[in-house]
Amino acid sequence: MAKEKLVKEITSMDEDFAKWYTDVVSKAELMDYSSVKGCMIIRPYGWAIWENIQRIMDGMFKETGHENVSMPMFIPESLLQIEKDHVEGFAPEAAWVTHGGNDKLEERMCVRPTSETLFCDHYKNIIHSWRDLPKLYNQWCSVVRWEKTTRPFLRSREFHWQEGHTIHATAQEAQAETIQMLNIYAEFAEKYLAIPVIKGVKTEKERFAGAVDTYTIEAMMHDGKALQSGTSHFFGDGFAKVFGIQYADKENKLATPFQTSWGVSTRLIGAIIMTHGDDSGLVLPPAVAPIQLVIVPIASHKEGVTEKATEIYENMKKLCRAKIDLTENSPGWKFAEYEMKGVPLRLEIGPRDIENNQCVIVRRDNGEKITIGLDELEEKIPELLGAVHDGLYEKALANRSEKTYVAKTMEEMIDIAENKPGFIKAMWCEDRACEDALKEKAGVSSRCMPFEQESLSDKCVCCGKPAKKMVYWGKAY
Amino acid sequence: MAKEKLVKEITSMDEDFAKWYTDVVSKAELMDYSSVKGCMIIRPYGWAIWENIQRIMDGMFKETGHENVSMPMFIPESLLQIEKDHVEGFAPEAAWVTHGGNDKLEERMCVRPTSETLFCDHYKNIIHSWRDLPKLYNQWCSVVRWEKTTRPFLRSREFHWQEGHTIHATAQEAQAETIQMLNIYAEFAEKYLAIPVIKGVKTEKERFAGAVDTYTIEAMMHDGKALQSGTSHFFGDGFAKVFGIQYADKENKLATPFQTSWGVSTRLIGAIIMTHGDDSGLVLPPAVAPIQLVIVPIASHKEGVTEKATEIYENMKKLCRAKIDLTENSPGWKFAEYEMKGVPLRLEIGPRDIENNQCVIVRRDNGEKITIGLDELEEKIPELLGAVHDGLYEKALANRSEKTYVAKTMEEMIDIAENKPGFIKAMWCEDRACEDALKEKAGVSSRCMPFEQESLSDKCVCCGKPAKKMVYWGKAY
Repeated sequence: MAKEKLVKEITSMDEDFAKWYTDVVSKAELMDYSSVKGCMIIRPYGWAIWENIQRIMDGMFKETGHENVSMPMFIPESLLQIEKDHVEGFAPEAAWVTHGGNDKLEERMCVRPTSETLFCDHYKNIIHSWRDLPKLYNQWCSVVRWEKTTRPFLRSREFHWQEGHTIHATAQEAQAETIQMLNIYAEFAEKYLAIPVIKGVKTEKERFAGAVDTYTIEAMMHDGKALQSGTSHFFGDGFAKVFGIQYADKENKLATPFQTSWGVSTRLIGAIIMTHGDDSGLVLPPAVAPIQLVIVPIASHKEGVTEKATEIYENMKKLCRAKIDLTENSPGWKFAEYEMKGVPLRLEIGPRDIENNQCVIVRRDNGEKITIGLDELEEKIPELLGAVHDGLYEKALANRSEKTYVAKTMEEMIDIAENKPGFIKAMWCEDRACEDALKEKAGVSSRCMPFEQESLSDKCVCCGKPAKKMVYWGKAY
Repeated sequence: MAKEKLVKEITSMDEDFAKWYTDVVSKAELMDYSSVKGCMIIRPYGWAIWENIQRIMDGMFKETGHENVSMPMFIPESLLQIEKDHVEGFAPEAAWVTHGGNDKLEERMCVRPTSETLFCDHYKNIIHSWRDLPKLYNQWCSVVRWEKTTRPFLRSREFHWQEGHTIHATAQEAQAETIQMLNIYAEFAEKYLAIPVIKGVKTEKERFAGAVDTYTIEAMMHDGKALQSGTSHFFGDGFAKVFGIQYADKENKLATPFQTSWGVSTRLIGAIIMTHGDDSGLVLPPAVAPIQLVIVPIASHKEGVTEKATEIYENMKKLCRAKIDLTENSPGWKFAEYEMKGVPLRLEIGPRDIENNQCVIVRRDNGEKITIGLDELEEKIPELLGAVHDGLYEKALANRSEKTYVAKTMEEMIDIAENKPGFIKAMWCEDRACEDALKEKAGVSSRCMPFEQESLSDKCVCCGKPAKKMVYWGKAY
């Protein structure tokens, strides 16, 4: 038998969650560090998760009438500067190209941190009449923000995302689009990633640079911290006005259109890891798992085992993304390897099983072992994949419920923030000063004002003045 | 009836092929110019062609065991400089990032012009043993080369492509990979794009910077010029040596692996346009056409026409990528519009057709009108799409045959090069001086030394010394 690799050791979650995270992303072979500071290499197993996310989400976008386009990756400085808030938000972390070959550029360009300005520039060329509206565009690409501290998938200088950019004749239509896309993100997170999310609107402080309103889906990670997992922005006609985008309406009068943008990124992979992972490694939701079922033959040197396992594999790969591991590594090593990689289901089959016309299925989410007749596999595997999804979702929801607290006074807020990592629901007067004070004194930021409002008290948790909104507060990635 | 857009006018091919080309890419809404000099916006219709190319080709790559990854878009200058030939080839046209936010970078980085150096840097981290080989990687991304003169899809400062990068234990294995990928490119060009190509190897002068051998597929455009449409490079162990990539072989001795890379780009869209297009606009091969069949109701105000057309559309969209145009534009306007956009088949249906339970199909490739019973559509549409593909391929092949010449002397070479745009087959002694002389005196470059060699004469067309290879010469995009 070939020499085996050692079973991969990872830090336990409770000991050091941050270290556990970086162990998992490396050991599960999702990524590798590169010589380019702050940028990462996404390895085949990690990229395959992103491809599954892309495929499903792209289908949802196209079903709602969106078309993909491709904008340049550069933005000339003068173009970035047209919208005042936008440039203030993004210029400080832009990567600047100053030379082409040996020549200094007449005007420096940044690598896009986001593409609102490029889309506006294009809209100005192609929108003339009400017949040209709406444009419902999206692009899959990478963008660059020169962050000081980076973490794989969560914050890196270059990251992959999709950015939707739409333009409409009326504010109502643009607002409806903004909410529609937020709902698509929430549906995607819950239905495909098994991650429950809270939908809401950001406070002014947390708004996207240049937006009138920023909507968000917020997920809670295993350690109680929040991860902003997708945002959808309503721009009003602010960008259109400064870029001079106008169209002739049905009465042939010049009018200004309204815009939105919305995005999710490879952060979603970070969300998957930190929502579902455990001390054995990654745990992947079946809908985006590159391998949904791994088949491990037991005592494969015994007659007929490899053949039977292969026969099952041939059938299973018609049902789901299946893999068979026929390497010379021991079953124990293989178990640990595919647990590390978060494969939702493992199928074990050995000589005794074959005699009994059965096999053993092990669920990655809860370790449950189930003996199943070989004739039942076609029916049971899809059911079990569904069960793993549901199990993951329920577990994540339970974690969030358990770690969601209510604070009615500043003392309660500080106490919870210090001692109980999680979401804190509390009332707020909508005054920026209180939001800043909560950050300073309790170390929490506003995650969102949820659509589902509750009246916990009639006073602001900070200043005691009349409360206007219930807000989710927390520490965030 | 709504006011119609004017029928789009384009320059005729024979009058000015370059102008015809830029008219088509704009009027068919494949692209738009941007404020970023030398970069272009790929519009939804153009991007949808690229998505079809990606989907089919990605399937071919995965079937042959390749995995997708994602490397950073930046290359630190010191990394680019490790391979001497490579840096000489690419540094002069690199776009350089010198600042992150307000800070000057310690080391400037270029935006990747190609990613060999990044892959090598990664291989060094992940390859230790013969068990880690081969790695068969690919990535879909955009790259940047600071070109002086640019043309949509053919040469732009940023362009989209795929770059495959593989690493193998033996030179033989790497060479076989190089040829396998060239064959996949040729199969793709012929089977899906209806573009006949010549497979061969580049001369040393035309080789990729850092490669031992560069293989190519060369296509002939309508105007007789050559378009290099895909290349596959064998690197030997040159990159591995300078990057210090080594592995323990089966005898536990340190060995150096062998590498390849291969790529095709959005140039393929340029190839489609210039191979199949005509004076009415674009003509798309069915396999990559965003719309394969457009349904245009005639006299749609008459009772039952819109309903019948819609019923047909509902059936057709199960068979192919179908679209129905129910706008108020006139049938004549719609005919011109979808001809401009190169839709392979048009289905016309009016009151008389409905009475006779039939419709008219018009082929974009040759204008043929065919009356078909509505009950036959399901059988006939796929057949007709196949016929359009075959028609396009045959026409392109005929154009190439007609414009391929043989030159046995320098006088013949100069005469043909001046008066008959096309490929010129001629013998060559393998001396660089003759290749340079042919460029200077006849204005032609070597396109490739084809796999299918012929012995046209025993003397070099230029110097008269013994000939070693038959070469395709021509003017190229």
